Amino acid sequence: MKLPDKEKEFLQWYTAIIEYANIVDKRSPVKGSNVIMPYGYSIWESIVAKLDGELKATGHKNAYFPLFIPEDYLMKEAEHFEGFIPEVAWVTRAGDRELDRKLALRPTSETIMYEMFRLWIRSHSDLPLKINQWCNIIRFDTKETKPLLRDREFLWSEGHTCHATAGEAEEQVKESMKLYEAVYKESCMSFLILRRPKFDTFAGAVYSIAYDCPLPDGRTLQIGTTHNLGQGFSKAFNITFQDKDKKNKNVHQTCYGLSTRLIAAIVGMHGDEKGLIIPPYIAPIQVVIVPIYRKEQREEVNKASEKMLKKLLKAGLKVELDKREGYTPGWKFNEWEVRGVPIRLELGPRDIENEQVVLVRRDTGEKLSVPMKDTAKSAEKILDEIQDFLQKRADKLLEDSISHPKDYQELIDIQKTKRGFSRVNWCGDEACAEKVKDDTGADVRGTREDIKEKPDGDCIICGTKAKEVVYIASAY
Amino acid sequence: MKLPDKEKEFLQWYTAIIEYANIVDKRSPVKGSNVIMPYGYSIWESIVAKLDGELKATGHKNAYFPLFIPEDYLMKEAEHFEGFIPEVAWVTRAGDRELDRKLALRPTSETIMYEMFRLWIRSHSDLPLKINQWCNIIRFDTKETKPLLRDREFLWSEGHTCHATAGEAEEQVKESMKLYEAVYKESCMSFLILRRPKFDTFAGAVYSIAYDCPLPDGRTLQIGTTHNLGQGFSKAFNITFQDKDKKNKNVHQTCYGLSTRLIAAIVGMHGDEKGLIIPPYIAPIQVVIVPIYRKEQREEVNKASEKMLKKLLKAGLKVELDKREGYTPGWKFNEWEVRGVPIRLELGPRDIENEQVVLVRRDTGEKLSVPMKDTAKSAEKILDEIQDFLQKRADKLLEDSISHPKDYQELIDIQKTKRGFSRVNWCGDEACAEKVKDDTGADVRGTREDIKEKPDGDCIICGTKAKEVVYIASAY
Repeated sequence: MKLPDKEKEFLQWYTAIIEYANIVDKRSPVKGSNVIMPYGYSIWESIVAKLDGELKATGHKNAYFPLFIPEDYLMKEAEHFEGFIPEVAWVTRAGDRELDRKLALRPTSETIMYEMFRLWIRSHSDLPLKINQWCNIIRFDTKETKPLLRDREFLWSEGHTCHATAGEAEEQVKESMKLYEAVYKESCMSFLILRRPKFDTFAGAVYSIAYDCPLPDGRTLQIGTTHNLGQGFSKAFNITFQDKDKKNKNVHQTCYGLSTRLIAAIVGMHGDEKGLIIPPYIAPIQVVIVPIYRKEQREEVNKASEKMLKKLLKAGLKVELDKREGYTPGWKFNEWEVRGVPIRLELGPRDIENEQVVLVRRDTGEKLSVPMKDTAKSAEKILDEIQDFLQKRADKLLEDSISHPKDYQELIDIQKTKRGFSRVNWCGDEACAEKVKDDTGADVRGTREDIKEKPDGDCIICGTKAKEVVYIASAY
Repeated sequence: MKLPDKEKEFLQWYTAIIEYANIVDKRSPVKGSNVIMPYGYSIWESIVAKLDGELKATGHKNAYFPLFIPEDYLMKEAEHFEGFIPEVAWVTRAGDRELDRKLALRPTSETIMYEMFRLWIRSHSDLPLKINQWCNIIRFDTKETKPLLRDREFLWSEGHTCHATAGEAEEQVKESMKLYEAVYKESCMSFLILRRPKFDTFAGAVYSIAYDCPLPDGRTLQIGTTHNLGQGFSKAFNITFQDKDKKNKNVHQTCYGLSTRLIAAIVGMHGDEKGLIIPPYIAPIQVVIVPIYRKEQREEVNKASEKMLKKLLKAGLKVELDKREGYTPGWKFNEWEVRGVPIRLELGPRDIENEQVVLVRRDTGEKLSVPMKDTAKSAEKILDEIQDFLQKRADKLLEDSISHPKDYQELIDIQKTKRGFSRVNWCGDEACAEKVKDDTGADVRGTREDIKEKPDGDCIICGTKAKEVVYIASAY
């Protein structure tokens, strides 16, 4: 099996790899509504476990809100609704009857949740309210769908909070960023944290912060967002509380989301010409044992392999023993490389004799012989090293993806060739952002949220006085 | 707050309790599509954790399949489709466009999964295939909806398996029953395991086994099902494999489901006149600490309560400290009783002096003073005792719910008054089942699957020779 070139033909490589590595089966019948296969779903389960733990440790409570949202709910916050209207899927029939009023399938849950929050919140002692929901989301996009990158149905976590003051909402935005960064770290992601320009904030929000991750083809992928909603929704939905001063006030709100799209980023960020490399902390299988033998040695080697399997499972590692017959070890090596298992453990008659095993790192290809009795400890150490290696390589990819064009022509050249992030001075005018979009297809993605940056020259597009330093990139 | 009488007005009691105990908020805008509140959702999370562990330990793998199912998929297994057609919700529009072909929202996932299984399964080495999915299900029922009991949207686990032989499928049915029984045990459920009569099997199945749980008003609730699908679907969907003898064969299939309806059964089975009692092993909060003080003692008592909270959390218990001001201890006692927290821990100045706390059991109301240093150990012991108490009480409820009418008139009288299960001899004829339904509203629910029972007389309805012993009950 030969994969397309990852840098030159990224989407072809991506499409091939998610199929070969059993992440997604896109032969499902509805475009953009794909099957997440067990191996891919297991990566999602690792992400869910990590994020759910972080959310609970910070006082979030999970709940479940309906898939169906009546049209009049969506219309309560007009600006918000308008943003989603081209993508809303409508249920108009049930059984053989027409419904009296058509029902939207949730493109996001603000409207249905906030109608409930209005009923749940009475006084300051009900605040902060921090609710999370794990659910499926429907955005019936008409543009080109791409598995996990742009799906008509995807899975996500959506956090929604209400606070007594603007300051507390501001703090909540920061807390959500910390939670998400903890999850991205498990996945060895590297990204820019950008405050989107005003014209690109989430419909109904005061401001939006997003995580943009560079992919090998130079495009960037938004892997999560946090929004400070201010009081826009709380006024539209009349969510009020009696404060300590006995006055009725509108709550301040935030919301944030992280979806199965993160799996696409993990695949894109860490894979290589041999296939996927899954970060050890979220890998469905961390170590795969491949027994190697001639026919007459089979029983002995299989017995030793079973023993090793039990030993590693007992040490808390996620291990699989590939006992399949009728496949050569080389065929198996290839398959587990494609699927990105961090460590391959080879075990043959000579290893048994020497009381050792061979561990092969998926990231570097390095082979190590280790004593059988130390296998678990060695594997754990190597998993940490691979996690570290992938993180450093991702950080380097991010660093290399940022260019510093000195004039507009250079910006155009960069965005038309290698792409990545261009760090430039900007006047803040939407017309300039539109000009860049027209000339290059790239967007003004926003200003750094994690550090303060000041412009040191004029707007790279129009030449007037710059107001901020922004990052421009072509996005998926 | 006074609750309706649980036996005499069960549905009123149930509807009140799920509201007061913060299980479900049914003020959501679409009938039968309700909000599961954090406290209710937490019970579901306990059930999910238990079942997911059991499924994984028996080799099931989780995956995710699309919500959207094209009409022609549903039609492939005609009998199956017909069973669901009156309840299917159809998406016909997206944005402002009509869709070329309308899409069904999954009422269950056989059709979409089996189309994939056809592609995934090649040879005997791919078997058994054991896939589970956690997802939302849509059944747009036109009958009276009741929160958690009969919802238009609910959450569930659906297991689907493929096997090389009929015998292995048969074994899988048994395995699934064991998994489900382990989950029901966590919830202190008591139930009959019944093989449904032929006319009441799942559409497309060879036979169906269901778990019927008695509720206090004498009606029964189906809390889970397992189906042996034989080769019906595998022939309709052409799911074949090359067997060891090199011949192509159709797989044998099973499927099973367990939903958020189980929460309704837990509420109905264990509650009392004071509210809900949640089985300790699945309780969102196992111990609630209520500090008791006069104003000047507040600081001292709160400090001791905080210390106790940390101690119990450290011991792995799920604990909440109710520090709310402006509420009397009596008001708090009442609230936590309604919400069914198994143990209330009272802590006042005299307790601090005596280095003790008072533990109050929600099930029996019994109060115990225990030394502060032993609190965690005592609480754990009491939680086990409550779990045991609830299970025994549920078993007694089931036992008492089974009656043995000697003739048809007595069967009618029982099913029109106290209801419950009537154990009777039956000829096996559907006409007799219809007669009972017409005369009493009760259904022939099926034969015991866990034990063999032989008829000792003639059919209680028509008087001809009986073929089996069946259980008749009115179902929700």
